[in-house]
Amino acid sequence: MNEHPVRGYSADKDQLRRRLARIEGQVRGIQKMVDEDRYCIDVLQQIAAAQAALNKVALGLVDGHVRHCMVETDGDARRRDEMTGELMGAVGRLVG
Amino acid sequence: MNEHPVRGYSADKDQLRRRLARIEGQVRGIQKMVDEDRYCIDVLQQIAAAQAALNKVALGLVDGHVRHCMVETDGDARRRDEMTGELMGAVGRLVG
Amino acid sequence: MNEHPVRGYSADKDQLRRRLARIEGQVRGIQKMVDEDRYCIDVLQQIAAAQAALNKVALGLVDGHVRHCMVETDGDARRRDEMTGELMGAVGRLVG
Amino acid sequence: MNEHPVRGYSADKDQLRRRLARIEGQVRGIQKMVDEDRYCIDVLQQIAAAQAALNKVALGLVDGHVRHCMVETDGDARRRDEMTGELMGAVGRLVG
Repeated sequence: MNEHPVRGYSADKDQLRRRLARIEGQVRGIQKMVDEDRYCIDVLQQIAAAQAALNKVALGLVDGHVRHCMVETDGDARRRDEMTGELMGAVGRLVG
Repeated sequence: MNEHPVRGYSADKDQLRRRLARIEGQVRGIQKMVDEDRYCIDVLQQIAAAQAALNKVALGLVDGHVRHCMVETDGDARRRDEMTGELMGAVGRLVG
Repeated sequence: MNEHPVRGYSADKDQLRRRLARIEGQVRGIQKMVDEDRYCIDVLQQIAAAQAALNKVALGLVDGHVRHCMVETDGDARRRDEMTGELMGAVGRLVG
Repeated sequence: MNEHPVRGYSADKDQLRRRLARIEGQVRGIQKMVDEDRYCIDVLQQIAAAQAALNKVALGLVDGHVRHCMVETDGDARRRDEMTGELMGAVGRLVG
């Protein structure tokens, strides 16, 4: 856990929350489909929708990180290198 | 919504439910991290974990579909073609 | 290396070859862009195009495998299980 | 086509070339496998290897772009915004 005063996503925090609440609802909906023995292909379609929504949230966080957190590193080459390394770790995990 | 008597995942339904309940908890945890203004990179790591867990559920559903649903199509070429088409649609959405 | 008399992709072999030849050309084009010091973002766009083309080839192979190879397993539960396992390994690697 | 004096990947240009030459060889190897009617699953494994190698090249380019190109935008908020937009477009295509 890092202690940074400004979150890159602060400006869009409400949008981020709404999206995550919707994804939580999607995952609950998938559980309900399983409970009701719905057809695998229909369940898979809902999983793909939840994954696309999570990807969108992740890309929004990466964008906010580059725009708002990394901007603070102007002139501090060591900190910038560190943050670029963190960013690449995160992007690498998303790319899979 | 299709009406098929046997779900491919029925045998593993409890495991599937447990996994989806855990993913719901992960998404709730991500919302909490956002509420607490946690560092973007840490939030991204949790999103990647939830995505990996959803992928695992999806692959389990594909496996169950091939093993249990498609097996019923033995000798029915038309139905097999239809199910292969559905399967490929689902796999294509997962591959992205 | 397995010895199976019928390839799932045999029917579409020419299309498959043409696609792969085109991808080889795309990769050569990317090398040329690097030689010419082209802008990273433009190079990345071409890499994404080559990846999309490889994905399409891979999905075509999966489709052919299910339609043509797995059909031979009718009534042979052990062989079907084995081929489903192979298929899931391949799909899992594509999903990443 | 953009006209930027410094490529982010210049320092690693030789490594990048070697990797792309190897990927070109992988794609040619896949064509040979198809010509020889090799088993679909074995072909799919080689496609997954080529995709992983392309992903690695792409992540290296993103890293170089952030470290070397975007560093030039210090103090130029408009240009930084533009480059972040380009970067996110590229990352979004990789994430799929």
